[in-house]
Amino acid sequence: MVKYSGGALLPTLGIDRDSSTPIAAQLTSAIRDAILSGALAAGQRLPSSRTLARDQNVSRTTAIAVFDQLTAEGLITSRVGDGAYVSDALTAHRPSMTTAAGAGDRVLPQPAHLARVTQGASGQYLTRLVHPVQPRAFVTGTPAYEAFPVALWARLTARYWRESRGLVLGYPEPSGLMALRKALSAHLRANRGVVCEPEEIFIVNGAQEAFNRIGSILLNPGDPVWFENPGAIGARNSLISCGARLVSVPIDREGIDVAAGLRAAPDFRLAFVTPSHQHPTGVTMSLERRFELLNAADQAGAWIVEDDYDGEFFYTGRPLPTLKSVDKAGRVIYVGTFSKSLFPALRLGFLVAPPGLAEVFDRIAGATLQGAPSNQQAVVASFIEEGHFASHIRRMRKLYSERQEVLLDCAGQRLSGLLDVVRSESGIQTVGTLVGPLDEQEVTEAAAARGVIVAPINRFCLEPVAMKGLALGFSACPPREIRAGVTILAEVLDRLASTSGGERISARRRE
Amino acid sequence: MVKYSGGALLPTLGIDRDSSTPIAAQLTSAIRDAILSGALAAGQRLPSSRTLARDQNVSRTTAIAVFDQLTAEGLITSRVGDGAYVSDALTAHRPSMTTAAGAGDRVLPQPAHLARVTQGASGQYLTRLVHPVQPRAFVTGTPAYEAFPVALWARLTARYWRESRGLVLGYPEPSGLMALRKALSAHLRANRGVVCEPEEIFIVNGAQEAFNRIGSILLNPGDPVWFENPGAIGARNSLISCGARLVSVPIDREGIDVAAGLRAAPDFRLAFVTPSHQHPTGVTMSLERRFELLNAADQAGAWIVEDDYDGEFFYTGRPLPTLKSVDKAGRVIYVGTFSKSLFPALRLGFLVAPPGLAEVFDRIAGATLQGAPSNQQAVVASFIEEGHFASHIRRMRKLYSERQEVLLDCAGQRLSGLLDVVRSESGIQTVGTLVGPLDEQEVTEAAAARGVIVAPINRFCLEPVAMKGLALGFSACPPREIRAGVTILAEVLDRLASTSGGERISARRRE
Repeated sequence: MVKYSGGALLPTLGIDRDSSTPIAAQLTSAIRDAILSGALAAGQRLPSSRTLARDQNVSRTTAIAVFDQLTAEGLITSRVGDGAYVSDALTAHRPSMTTAAGAGDRVLPQPAHLARVTQGASGQYLTRLVHPVQPRAFVTGTPAYEAFPVALWARLTARYWRESRGLVLGYPEPSGLMALRKALSAHLRANRGVVCEPEEIFIVNGAQEAFNRIGSILLNPGDPVWFENPGAIGARNSLISCGARLVSVPIDREGIDVAAGLRAAPDFRLAFVTPSHQHPTGVTMSLERRFELLNAADQAGAWIVEDDYDGEFFYTGRPLPTLKSVDKAGRVIYVGTFSKSLFPALRLGFLVAPPGLAEVFDRIAGATLQGAPSNQQAVVASFIEEGHFASHIRRMRKLYSERQEVLLDCAGQRLSGLLDVVRSESGIQTVGTLVGPLDEQEVTEAAAARGVIVAPINRFCLEPVAMKGLALGFSACPPREIRAGVTILAEVLDRLASTSGGERISARRRE
Repeated sequence: MVKYSGGALLPTLGIDRDSSTPIAAQLTSAIRDAILSGALAAGQRLPSSRTLARDQNVSRTTAIAVFDQLTAEGLITSRVGDGAYVSDALTAHRPSMTTAAGAGDRVLPQPAHLARVTQGASGQYLTRLVHPVQPRAFVTGTPAYEAFPVALWARLTARYWRESRGLVLGYPEPSGLMALRKALSAHLRANRGVVCEPEEIFIVNGAQEAFNRIGSILLNPGDPVWFENPGAIGARNSLISCGARLVSVPIDREGIDVAAGLRAAPDFRLAFVTPSHQHPTGVTMSLERRFELLNAADQAGAWIVEDDYDGEFFYTGRPLPTLKSVDKAGRVIYVGTFSKSLFPALRLGFLVAPPGLAEVFDRIAGATLQGAPSNQQAVVASFIEEGHFASHIRRMRKLYSERQEVLLDCAGQRLSGLLDVVRSESGIQTVGTLVGPLDEQEVTEAAAARGVIVAPINRFCLEPVAMKGLALGFSACPPREIRAGVTILAEVLDRLASTSGGERISARRRE
């Protein structure tokens, strides 16, 4: 550093004459930083423009431009006949500057001043399952990436970018691209028995976003919400974030136990359910139970969120009608996702609101949303309209059915007496019930150590359940990897069973 | 219809023998619909499978399969030796079935049972501006679509789809693609003086979504929030939706009037500001005012949301540092968008949280978000990394600067004395001050009738302001259309001025 005769200590300014940034801009920036960091204190006198020019080996014009800019920014003040000073105004208003640990250091704030619901929720979140980039046995929630028609998708995408600029670059419709809402309306009617107008369908950035929106629009902090136990982790976290007081309602062989829900919270404001394929137990809600639930919601004036996350995939005849398709009282909000039927990176989902609520959603979307990306929506709309979606789902239904058979077959041979894998009527995952004294968590960790992913049922629980088992995805991997996964699982279970007591081993039926 | 000897009236079942849907499925579906719609009442006896087979001209096996499926669904019950009946259980639980206007009719619910904040907000929303698909003079918030490198974008997109499947199809990172966060961190440092770690940047589905998230995470219902008057409509609606009690704070020539804010609500919990280019007045917040605001927030323990929506575009030397870059106390959440710097259909924005808050945001994103679409994020990351972003912004800065000059030039010639168009130092829009008795709304409607879009300042107001003017975008259209727009505006203003009183006309300076 050099002490200037006519001004303050000026830090080394480090000009790079090869840079494309003009020298004046570099000098301005360096002096600004020195002032803002406190290295140049308020009231300090700066060298004259003549001195600055000489010492930095720049033209006088450049030096004057630098001072002009800094003056315009309010960082320095010039007094006629008395040169330039670092502005006094700054220090007076610079917050915490003097108490900061040092110039350039960051003062970490307390992460206080959060909303009460945020503070309340953060202690209750369950950790979501991790989805590895490379699918492995028996990861859940993951479609068969290797079977997705990426080349076709890329072609539709390339075609899209040749459309008119205003269309592909401009603002999307807040409630969703009408072409996609129309395509979905036809698809849902034909495939899920959901009869709705395109205007009742809202395109969102994934089902998770649907839960966030639904919760924030419908729930007051503390509102009782029926939630399946065990149940879906992401939806649970979203509803908690909106202030929901979750009421744990057990799952039996017919799905959510409506009578138990009514005993626990007859004044429930919303019920979150997965009727087609309970997450994670795989139970299909019986038709009788569906009407019980609709009736209960009607009586309580409650909303029902029907999460149909993998209902497109069913393996035994015609599936039961969705709650939405038998809801005459307008209580059901149906939520769908393209994460399983297409791919998760797309981040597109949708909700179907009952007519009265659809008007509310539309108004709120118009006021507070800008919609999902146009390209994503338009390509999905084409994919549906041109029949690729229906045929992809048909192909995947066959593929996933075969993969489940491989899993059931191998599990029957290798895991019998240790892990009873249940046949699922639909969806892309199932459960295995742990037999004997084996511990869910122990099995999960031992399997993970060997590269096999299973999810313990208790991960999904608000309250402990009697069931002891593992969620097993069967969609992500080809048969070879499913077989290899079962082999590893068999070895892990064998080892754990043999160390957990001989008397149980004898109970095991070996084929 | 035919009355069956051994069973209930069965509606015509309408089988289509040319359909690809199996006949059993068609029959099942038709009977299911008849039951669910109430056309077949609970307890009614169905024809025997033999009768059904004969009358519908299907095989006995098919008829039995139909009954099996309906029994499995719980829609019918079979009593040994007594045939099949429509299940009693259904009607008991079928909600509102008897009170419905008729089978198949929809019962419209009251759109009640909304959250209190939703009910409170819906009366306060301001209507957002409409952005036409084909850009027109003087639409705001719209970049130059015709100057966007669509071909380059399509090439980067096509290249992206050739990457590994797990990467392009799998779940994105909830807080954002790390490659994009890193690219943004470098970009923000070099271009906006914002020094932050990639981990403090959160990628969201557009700035609008950032406001929704920030509001829901930080605000309790009723919390006082300083809001610029006039101010941004979308942000306003989002904060209201989160329960904010907006406190209208006036704008003067230095930006938000901090002293007025402190008088109105010293206990403010959050302040929403647009320092680089006040929306919609175009005022740049002075440096001194910036420090006043930071100081006030620090004292009140309040957060500041800095919406830097079009700050990339500046026309006079170096811009003032952002609030974020001089915030030493960790109060500022910086929000950026790609809607203006790239294009709106992309639906990508980001927020930069102070370190302590970043941890909170990360935790909440991990629990309740699934992130923005991978393809959008990855293509933007490449666009930045490969230097296209910086050069696009440079080109657009030049283009928009030229377009503003055209607007100022034409306006000076044609609108003088009627509408004084202000030179904006930055951004993609400016304002024109209406001179004399002309009415904002009247001018807006008359211009719209001739295809020219302007936005009256009062559209953006929480409380009436003295200023009477129009927001004018200058980025969307080429010079020819800007000139044509000014000509039309001149004719409209001339006509309105001449009908609103001769004494004002004489005050007009004609060149």
